[in-house]
Amino acid sequence: MAETGAKRIRLGMVGGGTGAFIGYVHRVASRIDGDYDLVAGALSSRPEVAKESGRNIGLAEDRIYSSYEEMARAEAARPDGIEAVSIVTPNHMHFGPAKAFLEAGIHVICDKPLTATLEDARALAAIKPKNGAKFLLTHNYTGYPLIRQARQLVESGALGTIRVIQAEYPQDWLTEPAADDNKQASWRTDPARSGAGGAIGDIGTHAYNLLRFVTGLKTEAVSADLTSFVPGRQLDDNVHIMLRFQGGARGMLWASQVAVGCENGLQLRVYGDKGGLEWRQDNPNYMWFTEFGRPKQLLTRGGAISGNAASTMNVRVPAGHPEGYLEAFATLYSQFAEVIRGNGAPYDGLLPTLADGVEGMEFITASVKSSQSDGKWTKLSEV
Amino acid sequence: MAETGAKRIRLGMVGGGTGAFIGYVHRVASRIDGDYDLVAGALSSRPEVAKESGRNIGLAEDRIYSSYEEMARAEAARPDGIEAVSIVTPNHMHFGPAKAFLEAGIHVICDKPLTATLEDARALAAIKPKNGAKFLLTHNYTGYPLIRQARQLVESGALGTIRVIQAEYPQDWLTEPAADDNKQASWRTDPARSGAGGAIGDIGTHAYNLLRFVTGLKTEAVSADLTSFVPGRQLDDNVHIMLRFQGGARGMLWASQVAVGCENGLQLRVYGDKGGLEWRQDNPNYMWFTEFGRPKQLLTRGGAISGNAASTMNVRVPAGHPEGYLEAFATLYSQFAEVIRGNGAPYDGLLPTLADGVEGMEFITASVKSSQSDGKWTKLSEV
Amino acid sequence: MAETGAKRIRLGMVGGGTGAFIGYVHRVASRIDGDYDLVAGALSSRPEVAKESGRNIGLAEDRIYSSYEEMARAEAARPDGIEAVSIVTPNHMHFGPAKAFLEAGIHVICDKPLTATLEDARALAAIKPKNGAKFLLTHNYTGYPLIRQARQLVESGALGTIRVIQAEYPQDWLTEPAADDNKQASWRTDPARSGAGGAIGDIGTHAYNLLRFVTGLKTEAVSADLTSFVPGRQLDDNVHIMLRFQGGARGMLWASQVAVGCENGLQLRVYGDKGGLEWRQDNPNYMWFTEFGRPKQLLTRGGAISGNAASTMNVRVPAGHPEGYLEAFATLYSQFAEVIRGNGAPYDGLLPTLADGVEGMEFITASVKSSQSDGKWTKLSEV
Amino acid sequence: MAETGAKRIRLGMVGGGTGAFIGYVHRVASRIDGDYDLVAGALSSRPEVAKESGRNIGLAEDRIYSSYEEMARAEAARPDGIEAVSIVTPNHMHFGPAKAFLEAGIHVICDKPLTATLEDARALAAIKPKNGAKFLLTHNYTGYPLIRQARQLVESGALGTIRVIQAEYPQDWLTEPAADDNKQASWRTDPARSGAGGAIGDIGTHAYNLLRFVTGLKTEAVSADLTSFVPGRQLDDNVHIMLRFQGGARGMLWASQVAVGCENGLQLRVYGDKGGLEWRQDNPNYMWFTEFGRPKQLLTRGGAISGNAASTMNVRVPAGHPEGYLEAFATLYSQFAEVIRGNGAPYDGLLPTLADGVEGMEFITASVKSSQSDGKWTKLSEV
Repeated sequence: MAETGAKRIRLGMVGGGTGAFIGYVHRVASRIDGDYDLVAGALSSRPEVAKESGRNIGLAEDRIYSSYEEMARAEAARPDGIEAVSIVTPNHMHFGPAKAFLEAGIHVICDKPLTATLEDARALAAIKPKNGAKFLLTHNYTGYPLIRQARQLVESGALGTIRVIQAEYPQDWLTEPAADDNKQASWRTDPARSGAGGAIGDIGTHAYNLLRFVTGLKTEAVSADLTSFVPGRQLDDNVHIMLRFQGGARGMLWASQVAVGCENGLQLRVYGDKGGLEWRQDNPNYMWFTEFGRPKQLLTRGGAISGNAASTMNVRVPAGHPEGYLEAFATLYSQFAEVIRGNGAPYDGLLPTLADGVEGMEFITASVKSSQSDGKWTKLSEV
Repeated sequence: MAETGAKRIRLGMVGGGTGAFIGYVHRVASRIDGDYDLVAGALSSRPEVAKESGRNIGLAEDRIYSSYEEMARAEAARPDGIEAVSIVTPNHMHFGPAKAFLEAGIHVICDKPLTATLEDARALAAIKPKNGAKFLLTHNYTGYPLIRQARQLVESGALGTIRVIQAEYPQDWLTEPAADDNKQASWRTDPARSGAGGAIGDIGTHAYNLLRFVTGLKTEAVSADLTSFVPGRQLDDNVHIMLRFQGGARGMLWASQVAVGCENGLQLRVYGDKGGLEWRQDNPNYMWFTEFGRPKQLLTRGGAISGNAASTMNVRVPAGHPEGYLEAFATLYSQFAEVIRGNGAPYDGLLPTLADGVEGMEFITASVKSSQSDGKWTKLSEV
Repeated sequence: MAETGAKRIRLGMVGGGTGAFIGYVHRVASRIDGDYDLVAGALSSRPEVAKESGRNIGLAEDRIYSSYEEMARAEAARPDGIEAVSIVTPNHMHFGPAKAFLEAGIHVICDKPLTATLEDARALAAIKPKNGAKFLLTHNYTGYPLIRQARQLVESGALGTIRVIQAEYPQDWLTEPAADDNKQASWRTDPARSGAGGAIGDIGTHAYNLLRFVTGLKTEAVSADLTSFVPGRQLDDNVHIMLRFQGGARGMLWASQVAVGCENGLQLRVYGDKGGLEWRQDNPNYMWFTEFGRPKQLLTRGGAISGNAASTMNVRVPAGHPEGYLEAFATLYSQFAEVIRGNGAPYDGLLPTLADGVEGMEFITASVKSSQSDGKWTKLSEV
Repeated sequence: MAETGAKRIRLGMVGGGTGAFIGYVHRVASRIDGDYDLVAGALSSRPEVAKESGRNIGLAEDRIYSSYEEMARAEAARPDGIEAVSIVTPNHMHFGPAKAFLEAGIHVICDKPLTATLEDARALAAIKPKNGAKFLLTHNYTGYPLIRQARQLVESGALGTIRVIQAEYPQDWLTEPAADDNKQASWRTDPARSGAGGAIGDIGTHAYNLLRFVTGLKTEAVSADLTSFVPGRQLDDNVHIMLRFQGGARGMLWASQVAVGCENGLQLRVYGDKGGLEWRQDNPNYMWFTEFGRPKQLLTRGGAISGNAASTMNVRVPAGHPEGYLEAFATLYSQFAEVIRGNGAPYDGLLPTLADGVEGMEFITASVKSSQSDGKWTKLSEV
């Protein structure tokens, strides 16, 4: 967010053609702070769509590619080639491009979950990137200033020893069978493209990543009950999970795509023996913080919080002027730009990595396995 | 709430001496609508406390008893003896007086959970009350007008087939070890007086009863993870439960006494394939109702809800003038008065019964058993 | 609330027959804490209604009166006559009974506004009650525990010097012309029974009394714009007032009966040079308190507020168990009972008096006069 | 938002050097949707600051100017000169550059209020722009999707005839005297740079513009009470205004910079004879809509609102993913880009104009005059 005179980073994109939701989000996120120029793309596996989409977003004709392999090769060879690439394809199409660009020495920004299978995730993590190319997994909710603040409060000991964690991410958009022409719904409910998890991969991992980011607690095991309510749906659309953390804390995670009246109700509540925190995405500029025996306090993004470095380094407009989803997303982009430029020290530990991606896949895999074993407690370390 | 000229019912009380919270609540509840006169009491097992407490609440000297047995005997023999009795002792002291008064032909109003053990509960349910004496279990949250409204909406089909139920009841008052002189805390954390469950018996049963009351769904099985976080505490202070209902609905229930910042955060959310409902006790005069694909509606107690008999028959003051916990409690008292008077037909199915009490004990017992079996799914029908 | 063994006070009621809203509210309020027995009534000016209403609420036949004059005379002559009376008639019928009972040495509990005219109010205040009979004006919102807490915070200096006061009381029930058979609406919109003010007398005075109670600031002058939006309505249904207080604070007051979507949206916000307070009746168990430069705190009724005598002496159930309108009303009744018993010292300055009633009428009168003078600033001291 | 392949518009900026809040906001707003490239700037009247600021935001050296006059001349002469300019200086410095660029045929995006004096505003409105250069006044709150939705609901008749409008914009950042080095505070409280109004010009005009935008009602007259609470402050820091609209509607407007606990509490409530609307900036993705006699509905940005063209054409991410202040601001920028490109028809009447700026100055001027005349009702048409 600092306007420091630094040069913009040349960015490419894989996936995200016309009609794609998350590709558009990545493009906006890359623009907000002015740290990137999107100059190349393999926006669709269908050449016509790739061509039209590239023109619509203003790419030069010779940098509109019809495959990511071609793009990786051609851009790596150009003196003005892309320095980073955003991968915004369906889950099963993350592995290929991520590998290709990392091996071409191009930094990778990849949507979550990391891959469609745990095997792919581990294989990707085992790659040795050329020229130290960096990797960012866009668990975008960690970019919310108050989520950073929550993490800092936990680290500072303000909550004491964490005991209970309640995370949830209810939606209702898949309450009914999706229409055939709903692009967003079709791949998310298709095992071939999404992987073994439905709601758990699409939104459950977000909730899981969020609780891990804020609390830092390592997960011991999960006991899951995944359900598919809509007739004909192959993947889970409702996720009930109990969690046990190292050290004894306990948690619950609920994710649903059939909770009528819930839009994107991501919520995190964390309780320790000294304090508690409560945050909801539907009004992300506010967070409750309670010290035991004291009145609840409403912390505000950029507001009156003494000595809060984490919060102030992520704020664009004054308290009371709401920031939202796109700004949180953009924070990941602009801080990754600093990492690319070699100024990443302040963001150490704050930006989701390949390791987070692997753990996310372990979480999905352990949960699916537990659910298939009638809720048997399943260790993440054993999947 | 109707002022119909009916005579007040003569009421006695067992337990509820000076310093007791729930005894006081029962007394207020009995007064609000003017349906009862409290005229006798065995308010404490300590004679001095019983005497002083009786005087404080205005009982005649000869109707202050030092044991419930004596009271049952003496009052049954008086021509102006009590017609009903409120039992507000710790859990393990419910069975004895309930049995004694039912067998004396005196109606019983009993606090929850029904007993300290499932065996006691079943024994109580097997008793044949003299003269058809009636029984009310004070699951008071079912008296909230909007909870009645929620039940009616479910019954009417407005939510369609129920899929997901999320119930929770977090508190924070037992975050730290209770001081020795905290009467409320001491018996609730003592297995000898509370039974096998801590938080699950004290508040988990309330959340469970609430979801059963609203949805009418029968529980198939539970998978529980009960924890005791505070060093030295013998009973659970945090309850995580997954539920499976007959017909396929799934649920989660969270109850906690160590969730810092939560006072009495009872909350119920129910989602079906056509609609969703969300209600919280901290602002009980409002409830969210969403029909799939339509904006959320905020239903208000006594407010603009067409054709809502359930809501209007439980409302004392106009919409916007908040009613609370005591009014909901009083509704149970005054509707039970109508039952006693033989006018109970409108309340059929609305007032918690012995059977509900037995089921609550099954829920506690199955949950404790599941937790002891590492979360094994445990059927309520098999405990 | 104390349950101290004190005897119940014998109470009568003028007005409040079947179908009357506020009479019923007074009866419930008198019962909640068990400090009164309602034993006599002149419940309607229509003898048949008076008789039937008296029977419905359980009065003895010989204590159902058809006029307040008769009741005052007869009850004053009985050895077991009423000690206090509640006057719950329309505004123009407050003066007569209040005068009669005070002069009979019977304590008076009177609904607000005090009278229909300022002249009546001043005449009433000039009466010398027999035997020191006491007077309570039921500005019931001052009974909310957090309103008491707000007053205490202002007194303690926690807000510093008050600068800005925003009070409002919007409703929507008179959005359309009232049906002829709407008893509540008909007298409130009739100048002969309500006095010169419509919304300003019915709800504006409540908002005004509330800000006076909390801040203690004396009003210098008002500039008002009263409007009657509904065709054919004779009295104002929307009230816009700017206020100037002694010492320089400024305020705004909005009351409306035509604000669609507002039920009883009483709200008070007070800002000083050190802190701010915000409270709403629709969730009265919570209040915002902000110290300048610090996060907002959510104070809760009976909750974690160190050293808060005002709050704790008005609380019946633990924090998180909501209390409402009827409990606040009952607090006035039970504390007035203590005044009657000679134990009123702790409530000095907390219970609304005849002087408050006169000031309320001055506020109404000055506002009506200002509005008729195109908003000319009008001093309360000059009406 | 469209990504239509359109070329980016070359943009310049006047004001907005390092440390300026609103200049930064304009830059972000210009980037979000990718419709502009910022290529030139006269960012400060101090050459060194101008130079450094220009470098920081990546301007070429030869397009960093030290005066707007020079910039207007030079850029108008370049074949690749700027097509539009953003003016983000203090109020008294709007007139000069706005005139210069309009007369140079360069489109102007100007911060509000339009000027420091009504005279300047009228003079500006009288200018004939070269080549039909367009003008946008950044009353950015009109860019919130739900504000657009509110306007559409009013236009559609869903509220019926508007009766009452309550607008407010409380802040607390000027509760204490500003430190000398607070750049934001110093010019806003300086009559020479701000004009005759303090809070009324800075935030009161925003609230006023918002109510005008949503309701379309023309203002008849205002009665104002402006106050300066902080010792030594020359301009008002609290604004109380009553409003009368043509056709009979009434309103209140409160703006404050000393309301402790309020960050940027912009709020608008509109009530008609059929419905009511309520919206707050602190959670701008939600708006209450009530049809009389029906439950309140919570409309959500991009959510389930049938047939709502206004809402859907202003939404970037799905309902439940919050958008905020910067997105609303960006909407003005990107829709003005369409106007510049000749595709502005869909935005007719939606983008604030010079005429709106003149009316804003009339509102400020009439309010100041009314306040100086002890609240005399003052017509906007007579200032």
